[in-house]
Formats: sequence, C-alpha cells, structure tokens
Amino acid sequence: MGKKRKSMAIMVHSGTVDKLLPVLTLASTASTMDVETRLFFTFWALNALKKGGLENVKPPDFLRIGTDTMKEKMRKAGIPSLQKLLQMCKESGNVKIYACSATMELMDIKEEELIPEVDGIVGAATFMDIALDADVSLFI
Amino acid sequence: MGKKRKSMAIMVHSGTVDKLLPVLTLASTASTMDVETRLFFTFWALNALKKGGLENVKPPDFLRIGTDTMKEKMRKAGIPSLQKLLQMCKESGNVKIYACSATMELMDIKEEELIPEVDGIVGAATFMDIALDADVSLFI
Amino acid sequence: MGKKRKSMAIMVHSGTVDKLLPVLTLASTASTMDVETRLFFTFWALNALKKGGLENVKPPDFLRIGTDTMKEKMRKAGIPSLQKLLQMCKESGNVKIYACSATMELMDIKEEELIPEVDGIVGAATFMDIALDADVSLFI
Repeated sequence: MGKKRKSMAIMVHSGTVDKLLPVLTLASTASTMDVETRLFFTFWALNALKKGGLENVKPPDFLRIGTDTMKEKMRKAGIPSLQKLLQMCKESGNVKIYACSATMELMDIKEEELIPEVDGIVGAATFMDIALDADVSLFI
Repeated sequence: MGKKRKSMAIMVHSGTVDKLLPVLTLASTASTMDVETRLFFTFWALNALKKGGLENVKPPDFLRIGTDTMKEKMRKAGIPSLQKLLQMCKESGNVKIYACSATMELMDIKEEELIPEVDGIVGAATFMDIALDADVSLFI
Repeated sequence: MGKKRKSMAIMVHSGTVDKLLPVLTLASTASTMDVETRLFFTFWALNALKKGGLENVKPPDFLRIGTDTMKEKMRKAGIPSLQKLLQMCKESGNVKIYACSATMELMDIKEEELIPEVDGIVGAATFMDIALDADVSLFI
C-alpha cells in the first residue's frame, strides 16, 4: 500500500508582496516536492486573484517603495515574479487555488472578476476540512 | 475504541477586525464540526477580551474606514458580528478562550477587566502543550 | 523503541518586537520542553539576525512608542529581552536558527553580516522538509 502524499494548506490573508511572495514560493517549492497544496485566499489576498491583480500587488506601506522598485529588486535577486510563481504552481498540477466566499460578499467581488487559475469558491468549512488533514497548515 | 477528536490551536496576536474575523469564523466553524478549539489571546488581541473590547475592535489603519462602516459592510454581507461569533463558539462547548499571562503583565491588564467568556489565564508552555497535540496550529 | 521527539518549525517573517517576542518566547519555552525547534528567518525578520540587529528591533509603527520605551515595559513586566531569549534558545541545544538564502539576495545581506548564532543559510525547500515533519508549524 502506498504512503499517503504529504499536503499543505495555507490561509492566505495578506495582500502585499512581502507576504504573497512567501506564499507562492512555498507553494511552488512544495509542488516540486509532490506535496498537495491548497491555497485559500481570504480578505486582502483576494484582490490578487482579480484579473490584473497579481501584477499590481504592492509592497507594504511601511516600506515606502513603489511596486516597480520592488519588482526590479526581485528581478535582480533572481526571484521569479508572482505571476511566474503562480504559473509554476498551476503547471505542477499539485496546487489548488480557492477564493473565500464570505470575503467575496464582503468586498463585493463577482466570480467573473477572478482569474481563471481559481479552482473554486468555497467557505471556511472547506478550509477546515483540508487543514485538519494537512501535514502543514499556515496563516499568512 | 473511538477515534480521537480533531483539534485546533490558534495563537491570536492581532487586534484588528480583519484578523479577529477569520479567528472567530474558523473557531465557530470548527465548533460545528466537533473540533476541539483552543484560542490563546496574546499581545494586541488581548484588548478584544477586555469588557467592551470586542464591540470596539477597529479595522487596520491602512484601510482608512471607521469601525461603524466596517460593521455595516459585514452586516450587509450577512457576516455575523464578532460578539455573535464568540457567543456561537461558547455555546458549542467546543471552544476554550485563554488569555496570555505575560501579555497581561506587559499591558497591565487585570483579571477583573476581562470578559467572563475567558476560560483561563495561562502561559506559553500551556499553548505549546496544546499546539503539539493539535491537528491544526495557526498564528493569526 | 523510544518515542520520536516532538518538533516545531516557525517561518519568522516580521521584524517588529511584538512578533519576534512570541517567536523567541515560544522557541525558548519549547526548548525547555525538549521540543526540537527550527526557526527560518525570512524577509523583515532577517534584519534581526544582523550584527546589532536584535538590540535595535523596533515596535510596530502603529504603536507610536520608541524602542527604549518598549524595552522598559518588557523589563518591568519581567519579560526577558530578545537577546536573552535567543541566548536561552541556543544554550538549550534544541533550537536551530536558519537564514533564508533568497531574502539575503533580495536585501543584499552578506553572510559575514550575520550573528554567529545563525546555524545555516538555507532555501524554501529546507523549510518545507522540516515543516512537513514537524508537530507544529507557524508563520509569524
């Protein structure tokens, strides 16, 4: 009998690049290790799933640098862009992206505004189900 | 022999509504799934456990909207208030609320200032004990 | 056959005292409970691993108090300083400190700028490996 695959669940809450970068770095790294990864986007993070959203993710206010400066720093350090990381996640087939239904109500976001990489719109009970069986659960 | 009940431990650190809403939503959702949940309030989150605190939890500074506007948005989206969510947690019997003893010293908060929903004042070792045996542990 | 030791993995992301205090409190508490703890410092947290960094960790902007005031509050509450907590972690032999290699590139930090308490410079795959086998994983 085969060993159960390892899995990770992340509740993604923050909408700034310093938080979304670790989220997508962990997810893409996990995907290369054949870890089943489920990302549940809620609150500010949901803006990154809107069409054009990921390209415009900002650094946090306290950093006082612009989005383009941050992108340039990442490029120079050899770090893939958020869009590239998301693409790597999806191509692996090991990462599912979920949008939080309650946040969509709260922020008045419609399903047709979301990028096609989103695998589904789900509630907190779905996240709980996934997290309870995951080897790693994080809130970022 | 019965299967061990699933459990969740959350270290609750943030004091703003965008973080306390996921905390209490996860806890109340877990409670309906018969998951034993332990919330350990520390730092800024402890203000929410003071009498009158939960009613006055603010949106984060960067949002630049008031507490009443946020409450109205939540009401329109059909999201229960933080007080209602806490009540649901407690009525389920599956959620315990702890206050961090070191934070009470640091912020000079007295036991009599806390709401009666608090089940105990405990230290970091108690959180560690709970988290090491939990199926899900989060820091929010 | 002996029982496997319990373990904890923390991805340390924040660079302010309100977040680094729980990180080092949990790590030092865990170390006294013989829990193997691995701290993976990334992003803002990496500044705390630079020589002189831990002494100058600031309170978050929204608090609007200075570093010295925060230190004095901690001292009065009987809470050890961040430096003392790190020392307790290292003396226990149960805590390893890692610096994130990608962040070092991004922030242009050189290995010789780091304090000697750092056990190694590693990538996200190392964190994933550790977290997948840990009893508790947190992002702080």
